[in-house]
Amino acid sequence: MNESVLESLVLENDSKIVLLVLDGLGDLPDREQGGRTPLEAARTPSLDALCPAAALGRLLPVAPGITPGSGPGHLALFGYDPLDTTVGRGVLEALGAGVELQKGDVAARANFCTVDGGGVVTDRRAGRISSETCATLVQMLARAMARIEDVEVILQAGKGHRFVAVLRGPGMSGEVSDADPHHEGRPIPAATAVAPAPSAVKAARVVNTLVARAREVLHDEHPANAVLVRGLSSRPHFPGYRERFKLRAAAIAAYPMYRGVAQLAGMEVLATGDTPADAFAVAAKRWKDFDYFFIHIKATDMAGEDGDFAAKVRAIETVDAALPALLALEPDVFCLTGDHSTPVPVRGHSWHPVPVLVHASYCGADHAPRFHEATARAGSLGVLASRDLIAVLLANAGRLDKYGA
Amino acid sequence: MNESVLESLVLENDSKIVLLVLDGLGDLPDREQGGRTPLEAARTPSLDALCPAAALGRLLPVAPGITPGSGPGHLALFGYDPLDTTVGRGVLEALGAGVELQKGDVAARANFCTVDGGGVVTDRRAGRISSETCATLVQMLARAMARIEDVEVILQAGKGHRFVAVLRGPGMSGEVSDADPHHEGRPIPAATAVAPAPSAVKAARVVNTLVARAREVLHDEHPANAVLVRGLSSRPHFPGYRERFKLRAAAIAAYPMYRGVAQLAGMEVLATGDTPADAFAVAAKRWKDFDYFFIHIKATDMAGEDGDFAAKVRAIETVDAALPALLALEPDVFCLTGDHSTPVPVRGHSWHPVPVLVHASYCGADHAPRFHEATARAGSLGVLASRDLIAVLLANAGRLDKYGA
Repeated sequence: MNESVLESLVLENDSKIVLLVLDGLGDLPDREQGGRTPLEAARTPSLDALCPAAALGRLLPVAPGITPGSGPGHLALFGYDPLDTTVGRGVLEALGAGVELQKGDVAARANFCTVDGGGVVTDRRAGRISSETCATLVQMLARAMARIEDVEVILQAGKGHRFVAVLRGPGMSGEVSDADPHHEGRPIPAATAVAPAPSAVKAARVVNTLVARAREVLHDEHPANAVLVRGLSSRPHFPGYRERFKLRAAAIAAYPMYRGVAQLAGMEVLATGDTPADAFAVAAKRWKDFDYFFIHIKATDMAGEDGDFAAKVRAIETVDAALPALLALEPDVFCLTGDHSTPVPVRGHSWHPVPVLVHASYCGADHAPRFHEATARAGSLGVLASRDLIAVLLANAGRLDKYGA
Repeated sequence: MNESVLESLVLENDSKIVLLVLDGLGDLPDREQGGRTPLEAARTPSLDALCPAAALGRLLPVAPGITPGSGPGHLALFGYDPLDTTVGRGVLEALGAGVELQKGDVAARANFCTVDGGGVVTDRRAGRISSETCATLVQMLARAMARIEDVEVILQAGKGHRFVAVLRGPGMSGEVSDADPHHEGRPIPAATAVAPAPSAVKAARVVNTLVARAREVLHDEHPANAVLVRGLSSRPHFPGYRERFKLRAAAIAAYPMYRGVAQLAGMEVLATGDTPADAFAVAAKRWKDFDYFFIHIKATDMAGEDGDFAAKVRAIETVDAALPALLALEPDVFCLTGDHSTPVPVRGHSWHPVPVLVHASYCGADHAPRFHEATARAGSLGVLASRDLIAVLLANAGRLDKYGA
């Protein structure tokens, strides 16, 4: 759907929309589990009660055969074209780490590594140092390089050997190659401008100074005696939910990355605990303040990545057990889906379409007894591009005007 | 899918992909056959054994309602946008006839016809002369017009009254109208440039000289006393399989046209006999040399064109009987589909979606008992554009990286 046409049709009313994302929800029939998927195997009485009155279908996050990362997967669910709306890895990581990015900031993923006397990288993960060691070392770096030229350097420690670097200063852009050989046994390459712009040249120079200073500061440390910097990117600015869809949107997500992506879409990010019950309680508490709630559950994806069928089943069952509290809020439109599939047999993100359920007064009842991959295949929503889901949600909320006379 | 994004995700590994195309595979339920399609009626024990573990779906070759020719049908299966990537008929015919085309060549379909004393075409097919007569006459023409201006004229006899003309010389393009009235009872029109370019004007002039000289050479022949020339086109150049998908691709096809199209996609064309068993034996022999095998079977399409239900069933059964030898090679990804439908009741190509089967470790088992049009409709692959099939095959082969962070 043409975005400007869609946005021109948006109406306002008092309806409430809930988008409940079970990360990596989609799965494959598992031969070792009697050919069932986790959704099929899970006991889901709350969903089962809702399902016959709901419309089912499947979402294609990016395109057939394409396995999406979490960024494109969520941006598409939010109604942004994941091929047009690219967000750099550094920006996602920085937002995820809770660094508030300003216009013009350049963000990067960084991590400690080990180099030998000749400057060759011998361990790209510095022996996987602890998060505590990482925090201490990042403090050392931050003291030694609060500024480079006229650029403020903001460092934020992450998990294990990872941290985030944000460069805040005039005239910089993120079109800069990685200061990371991506393989061990090679020296750290200089970052270079990949666009012929002075802003990229400046950013590359600052990154190279950062890497050089870090080697001086970390000279006597072991194994973390150098840093790698990659995924440099500028914070993109695209119109947010209020502007595009006239929605006051809230994001309820425990994990930083998803909070970051939601923030890019102009959602207000609410603090929550780790469990579905925590997230639903936050929704209940702030129910009056927003029109749209994006609620993110991570456990399904983690179980898929671990190849743990039973854990994925449990994650789904935990959501289902908590669901009555969310449904008791009586959202006008309730949508349950995933940002991509993370099938247990694959042990990672995959390209397979994701089942989606939409419940609303006029959704059309598919009379499916349960919600899972096989029933979703026969559902009345058919196969939708994830980016078109927002239009279906708005329509079901009575928030879209007729197109044309 | 955006082609450059797709290509940027391509990985290399040791996997093998087989695309088995049963030309014109798709069909319609035939009332005279108890409402079954040939795929439903055929006894296919090999496919039946494979089917429950496979993912099914349907391919849309070009767009809803559009009946594709063999060129667009195959180009789409190969991952080329059939609307962007047009190949002229002359080029397809020349490649199919085994003429190796060079950059700048202009190729045309040609055939003998009969004209009366006034130059009016009385039989566009010259009484369907034999292939032997055709070869003799083409030799006569070739001797009389090895060159026209500074242009080398390459003629290659085909079946019956048909031949191919390739014009090889500087500064020519294929934007030239046909020297063919397309109806009997009219004179042969002059070819004219359809683009205001000197290259088209020159090519038109050469074609008109060719037609005029042919009338002189054939003056005393009967019924083949003139020639028609049509489908003028320049050999297109688009990136091939190795460049786009990092695949060493082989084409195993007995019929010239399909060998030609595969060649345009940068596939190496392997010689084969007429039967499926022949083709699968070639695949077995060259298994180590390639990553991707396109295997083309023509008999299904011919049976459809003839409106011969029993022959189409037999063609499918012959493939199925030979299939164990192909499956014994254990391709990582095995795909069976068609380039378009050629329904028996239609007796020609049609616009109907084509059933597709994909078998791979992570394809997702649809548990369908058999593979045919009705089960394909309920399959997990849904409806795919043919041009997106390559992404699904690459994904199933583990040859596509994740998109975005």
